[in-house]
Amino acid sequence: MHLIEKYRTEFVGFLDNYSTEKEPQTLYNPIKYILNLGGKRLRPVLTLMTADIFSNDFKKALPAALSIEVFHNFSLVHDDIMDDAPLRRGQKTVHEKWDINTGILSGDAMLIMAYQLFENYEANIFQALAQLFSKTALEVCEGQQYDIDFETRDDVTVAAYLKMIEYKTAVLVGAAMKMGAIVANASAEDQDNIYEFGKNLGIAFQLQDDYLDAFGNPETFGKQVGGDIIVNKKTYLYIKALEFSNETERAALQQLFATNTDAAENKVALVKEIFNSTGSAQATKIAIEDYTKKAFLVLESLHISDDKKELLKNFGMSLMNRNV
Amino acid sequence: MHLIEKYRTEFVGFLDNYSTEKEPQTLYNPIKYILNLGGKRLRPVLTLMTADIFSNDFKKALPAALSIEVFHNFSLVHDDIMDDAPLRRGQKTVHEKWDINTGILSGDAMLIMAYQLFENYEANIFQALAQLFSKTALEVCEGQQYDIDFETRDDVTVAAYLKMIEYKTAVLVGAAMKMGAIVANASAEDQDNIYEFGKNLGIAFQLQDDYLDAFGNPETFGKQVGGDIIVNKKTYLYIKALEFSNETERAALQQLFATNTDAAENKVALVKEIFNSTGSAQATKIAIEDYTKKAFLVLESLHISDDKKELLKNFGMSLMNRNV
Repeated sequence: MHLIEKYRTEFVGFLDNYSTEKEPQTLYNPIKYILNLGGKRLRPVLTLMTADIFSNDFKKALPAALSIEVFHNFSLVHDDIMDDAPLRRGQKTVHEKWDINTGILSGDAMLIMAYQLFENYEANIFQALAQLFSKTALEVCEGQQYDIDFETRDDVTVAAYLKMIEYKTAVLVGAAMKMGAIVANASAEDQDNIYEFGKNLGIAFQLQDDYLDAFGNPETFGKQVGGDIIVNKKTYLYIKALEFSNETERAALQQLFATNTDAAENKVALVKEIFNSTGSAQATKIAIEDYTKKAFLVLESLHISDDKKELLKNFGMSLMNRNV
Repeated sequence: MHLIEKYRTEFVGFLDNYSTEKEPQTLYNPIKYILNLGGKRLRPVLTLMTADIFSNDFKKALPAALSIEVFHNFSLVHDDIMDDAPLRRGQKTVHEKWDINTGILSGDAMLIMAYQLFENYEANIFQALAQLFSKTALEVCEGQQYDIDFETRDDVTVAAYLKMIEYKTAVLVGAAMKMGAIVANASAEDQDNIYEFGKNLGIAFQLQDDYLDAFGNPETFGKQVGGDIIVNKKTYLYIKALEFSNETERAALQQLFATNTDAAENKVALVKEIFNSTGSAQATKIAIEDYTKKAFLVLESLHISDDKKELLKNFGMSLMNRNV
């Protein structure tokens, strides 16, 4: 997709000029490190694309796009500490390369720096961006807390799970797009609708992540297929399977999820069988489709040309048609 | 001091109505806990006092005052993790009562909530407050990082130490007062001067903390006298003593600071002797006086009545005349 590449290239150029050469280096070097680990830069690209759609000027959205990316990386640094994760994008996590205190403090600084990027805008835009940012950032914290809490709970409902992924992942996608709309002076209605588009697409994407983790093609998935099953992660597939299961299936599933087995291959196969037999796999596919459709439906209400609606739809479809 | 009590009472009332009864409780209960541990509420009181001085309306500064207090408590929660501190105001620290992950995430949420409190103001005030807040918060992080770095360094200069305490402690005092001035629509010049007043008073106060830790009256000091010496903390007294010492004194001081002795009483006595003989104790007293005078001198330039200057001066003196 030609346009997306343009946004990404512009964004990376802007990021390269973002000064993290400050004192004390012990605080700022880890920030420079994590911001330069790469990644798809999906969220900032969405901010730029949205600004372009509403104003034909995506460059003035660069600071807002960078704010979203700095925040996203802040959340990675702190989440990696909480999850005790050794690797991020194939490289050492910040707390592994330095230490936990460095991860905490550099992360804190990044959260503040994300707000500082709004200082590139005049007062009304500044306030609108910061207000949306605060609401979203707090929801991301709440989502992370729900995720942690769910690990030790056995009564997680579908509704609670959906709220968790909405907060932890999807609202930031919605906010990334809405920020582009704010900078572009889009109407309040358009701002709200583009947020809903991004949020619903974000939920669909996360549900698809759950689905592909079990049913993706091992050749192309990138991660270990069955990874969630092996660590007993209560994904949408698992919660739906419990809901739909008969007594035998439920007992089998709960027993499988009570083990930390080394016979991973067998466990993964057995669990996937239950995901299929209960209808959970099918229900997950339907949920993915529903949220994708919901996102596309919102597009209709936007006050933009059909070409631009098509552009957003195509982007959404390319995101959801991961051949993995 | 009658006025100060009024501000404190109003602030605590406002804090009591600040809603932390939100979901997930696992995230918000620790926030409620730390915010209600008490303390002198010095920073928010300063915000209210400053607003009152510049506009005779301190109540509209209550959200800004709370923002400062929420931020201050955020920094306590994260610093206590980094310092592995078990107690705060005589109660368990957040990461001790819950766990480190809770401390990290609840702290993050508090930093965001501090920004949200500015949403009580119109766009221009919002931006001025948030901009000052971001600058200050980032300096506090840098100060904390310098403090950590200094632990393993032997070449800390007086200038570097002063910058560290300025950033870690004093700028927040200055910002607390400047926020009151911003809310009160004081002139830019008055805003800057009241910031300088608070900052210099904050430095004086922190230097006095260093001094009293060694030379305070054990009966009234509240903490263990000599606490900094026992843990080999490189305070202003220590750095000045190294600067002023002859070879014998320096060797003795460095040797004493290389030990983690149980014979604390003897160590404390010997170090204090060196602080006195080198002239470091005297130099510290002079530095405290200098920064206090610097603060009071700034008061002259403020465009407020002499009564109000007197009020600020009296408050500064009461702060510095701790009989400990």
